[in-house]
Amino acid sequence: MSAATQASNKAKITTPADREIHIERIFDAPRDAVWRAFTEPDLLAQWWGRGNKLVIEKFELERGGHWRFVEHSADGAHGFEGRYREVTAPERVVQTFEWDGMPGHVVVEHVTLEDLGDGRTRIVNVSLFHTTEERDGMLHSGMEQGLNESYAALDKVLAELM
Amino acid sequence: MSAATQASNKAKITTPADREIHIERIFDAPRDAVWRAFTEPDLLAQWWGRGNKLVIEKFELERGGHWRFVEHSADGAHGFEGRYREVTAPERVVQTFEWDGMPGHVVVEHVTLEDLGDGRTRIVNVSLFHTTEERDGMLHSGMEQGLNESYAALDKVLAELM
Repeated sequence: MSAATQASNKAKITTPADREIHIERIFDAPRDAVWRAFTEPDLLAQWWGRGNKLVIEKFELERGGHWRFVEHSADGAHGFEGRYREVTAPERVVQTFEWDGMPGHVVVEHVTLEDLGDGRTRIVNVSLFHTTEERDGMLHSGMEQGLNESYAALDKVLAELM
Repeated sequence: MSAATQASNKAKITTPADREIHIERIFDAPRDAVWRAFTEPDLLAQWWGRGNKLVIEKFELERGGHWRFVEHSADGAHGFEGRYREVTAPERVVQTFEWDGMPGHVVVEHVTLEDLGDGRTRIVNVSLFHTTEERDGMLHSGMEQGLNESYAALDKVLAELM
């Protein structure tokens, strides 16, 4: 991908309902590669933390299993955790998401990998919050920049897999 | 309390909003005693499981802490867990609640102990679900009977504390 194309390849973030965030982004990689980058801990650790060191404390990738990641950034350690509601290879994961800084505020993420049939994959992530206030708090937390940094790092991981 | 009074002392369960369950029940005990029954593991284990054996695997009663209880009933072991959002003695706990049988379906419970000023305490528990379907699933799960069994067991624990 050219630098110009990369620069414009931002995630599309919309709010179709008052407690939801809808995210879409197309990746230049087949779905099986994207699935690997989401489910193999050594690959996940390379992009999820946006280039920061990521310690994967728990990664029980099955229905009912727990996950917990700690991102070590310049401003300290940030823990994130949740539980898997559904894991359907290679296309769908439904999981909860909670940041240590706001314990007990739980988002449900529905992540779908769509095979576009031309060697590309669209990631669709629909997040459901308990309240609109929690949704808006996430939107104003710097989420968009962090997400695009993670996805740019994922582009690199995928390029190396191919 | 007479047997007749006890028999009529069922929790009042209402659904004031489409994703909420509102529960109220008055206990013949001062608030400090009710708080102890909610926060001391050996007391909690006597009523939370409705007379069934309750194994308290985690009980980190502070903001950000986790809890996990396993109830051993005639039909097997049932795990429940969550995380504390707020712990304000002796009046308020906000926590998440999740049953292993439906992992990733998370309820937020706002539990308030109201001192009625006459030696009695009203417990108010407002639960917020992500969806109305999850709320209705809880209502149809036998929740009301289980709740009243737990609260009857709590009556006994409180009577012994006084």
